[in-house]
Amino acid sequence: MKIPVLGIGVTKFGELWDYSPRVLVKQAVAEALNDARLKITDVDAIFVANMLSGILGNQENLGALFADELKSANKPAFKIEGACASGGLAIHNAVNSVLAGVYEKVLVLGIEKMTDHNPAEIAQALMSAGHDEERASGISFPGLYAILARAHMEKYGTKEEEMAAVAVKNHYHASLNPKAQFQTQLTIEQIMKSSCVADPLKLLDCSPVSDGAAAIIISNIKYQRSKTKRTVNIVASTVATDSLGLRGRKDLTTLKAAMVAGSKAYQQAKIKSSHIDVAEVHDCFTIAEILAMEDLGFFSKGKAARAITRGATKLGNGGLVVNPSGGLKACGHPVGATGIKQVCEIVTQLRNEAGERQVKGAKIGLAHNVGGSGAVAVVHILKN
Amino acid sequence: MKIPVLGIGVTKFGELWDYSPRVLVKQAVAEALNDARLKITDVDAIFVANMLSGILGNQENLGALFADELKSANKPAFKIEGACASGGLAIHNAVNSVLAGVYEKVLVLGIEKMTDHNPAEIAQALMSAGHDEERASGISFPGLYAILARAHMEKYGTKEEEMAAVAVKNHYHASLNPKAQFQTQLTIEQIMKSSCVADPLKLLDCSPVSDGAAAIIISNIKYQRSKTKRTVNIVASTVATDSLGLRGRKDLTTLKAAMVAGSKAYQQAKIKSSHIDVAEVHDCFTIAEILAMEDLGFFSKGKAARAITRGATKLGNGGLVVNPSGGLKACGHPVGATGIKQVCEIVTQLRNEAGERQVKGAKIGLAHNVGGSGAVAVVHILKN
Repeated sequence: MKIPVLGIGVTKFGELWDYSPRVLVKQAVAEALNDARLKITDVDAIFVANMLSGILGNQENLGALFADELKSANKPAFKIEGACASGGLAIHNAVNSVLAGVYEKVLVLGIEKMTDHNPAEIAQALMSAGHDEERASGISFPGLYAILARAHMEKYGTKEEEMAAVAVKNHYHASLNPKAQFQTQLTIEQIMKSSCVADPLKLLDCSPVSDGAAAIIISNIKYQRSKTKRTVNIVASTVATDSLGLRGRKDLTTLKAAMVAGSKAYQQAKIKSSHIDVAEVHDCFTIAEILAMEDLGFFSKGKAARAITRGATKLGNGGLVVNPSGGLKACGHPVGATGIKQVCEIVTQLRNEAGERQVKGAKIGLAHNVGGSGAVAVVHILKN
Repeated sequence: MKIPVLGIGVTKFGELWDYSPRVLVKQAVAEALNDARLKITDVDAIFVANMLSGILGNQENLGALFADELKSANKPAFKIEGACASGGLAIHNAVNSVLAGVYEKVLVLGIEKMTDHNPAEIAQALMSAGHDEERASGISFPGLYAILARAHMEKYGTKEEEMAAVAVKNHYHASLNPKAQFQTQLTIEQIMKSSCVADPLKLLDCSPVSDGAAAIIISNIKYQRSKTKRTVNIVASTVATDSLGLRGRKDLTTLKAAMVAGSKAYQQAKIKSSHIDVAEVHDCFTIAEILAMEDLGFFSKGKAARAITRGATKLGNGGLVVNPSGGLKACGHPVGATGIKQVCEIVTQLRNEAGERQVKGAKIGLAHNVGGSGAVAVVHILKN
């Protein structure tokens, strides 16, 4: 598989009360089209990633809505939903459609508008990603990930300070990303002192509620960006699922869907995890990045937390850098946009255009997008 | 394109208060797997079509939910949504994935559970397919289609009795379909006397609120059903969009998305509309079948209503038969299942297994699935 990425676009992530979903999508798409030097009518199909517009805004049919809004001239359009993995899943289906030769140039856009709603509404809406037994019990997503954190702490001796180290690193990276929601650095102490949300997870272990949009344009044509500029290609796109609720899992210290999707992706790209220079992983909570590091084979089980704490995945370390954008934790997590923003960040890094947060010499990157408490995972590998 | 359909399954459609969505999906999938002589673990990916589970049941992430529920063993799974066209759009994306060679055998399932909710909730939820300006005006889908009906009546002199003739035909067909929601025949008089819903549309011009599920299994392998049994292949799969709201349309007497998707499908299948022996079209309201007949090229503009009234598309007429299942109008319209049930019916007809409602000698069939008031349309052509 070798699918060139022709263009990328990402809006500012944050509490964007002055912008409607339509405006955010237009911003991201205009940036991606400009980057690809294409017009919207050059695009053959539109894939939209979104989770919550139905529940929060009583608006479905987003494929047609944005095909219309963007003046695509009757182009085919689809909405793909798989909770927080909607973005990655939309890219996967778009990749399949260009691999099939059915469409030549495809726009994939992700959008979520969350901050206009009150926190109780958002918490309830997000639980639509989980199992009805879990919803009936009254648990929310911080609670589900707190269970995963406890299991990891018990089995591997993972410490709360080590989880906090994930947030410290990702806030440092976000401080170098002008589009990030939080561009302020944090200390371990600040995180440890922040209010408890679901023991052992504290407020600053959690990714925020965010608004934002992201877009990429991919193709099956041969593409040379320019004589001097690098073309980045998607070389693997894989998806796996697991039980919807935690009750169905044999092991709570690993997300099997991520392991399966990851190992398939390495096979597809004919590389090993050790070849990855830069990764954007789904750190919806700090424990999730620790799980991702182990499930994707970057560290053996029980070893990631200590490695992150000693700075093994931090910008400037000389090796693998994880979440240079700031991740979901600090760049923000507008659900439908997240999986697409991850790929935009990897493309930016592999093009050597990431400015202050550039991972030096990055040639192979990975994006890891998870839905629910690990019910679905998507992995993309990109190369230049 | 030549994608064999390995298996099909459809539940009874109707007010199924004793069955949960999980049970309905299991019934349809078991039937499809049995028909294909496969186990769920033989399937490489699962595409789920559903519109309303988020809004009505606060449950998203249906790809992972059903991959888990069906014990698929970590298989990739996706939810595709495009209002009432969700089923057709899911098949289109599944077709692309097998054309790409990414998956070999793919299960596409559609599910909707609507009758457990009160009519006001349903009407509001369905308006999530429309434009926010339309929602703000207080209009509902019968109202939107009533505008289309009025425009057609004014331009072509279409009569209310001619719209009623669509319902008479489709109820007759449904009377021969044991899985149909309404198996009772109607007269023009009964329809004309039924209560006005949105002038000129009366209660019996409208498709019902329904529960039901449908499933198909498609593949990219060469497939011979048996020495005596016919293999039915998908030979065209096309999608087009139009403005989300009626305000954006230049012409209210045609659905442009259906015209575009239809003409592309004929090109793809290298046939003309006159080659179609049997069609399942999206008759959410009686006027919608009249529009479909003209937009798909079966009759020239303004000629379909009279043709339907004189029985030109009725079972036993010797020519094209439209909606032998009973259509959305009489077989029922569980939104996410509809587009998949349409393909199941065409497969049944082309296999010559439709019993009392068999279209004699049917060799080429078409399925036409519409989302919203024509914002998106999907056309599939099948052949044996």
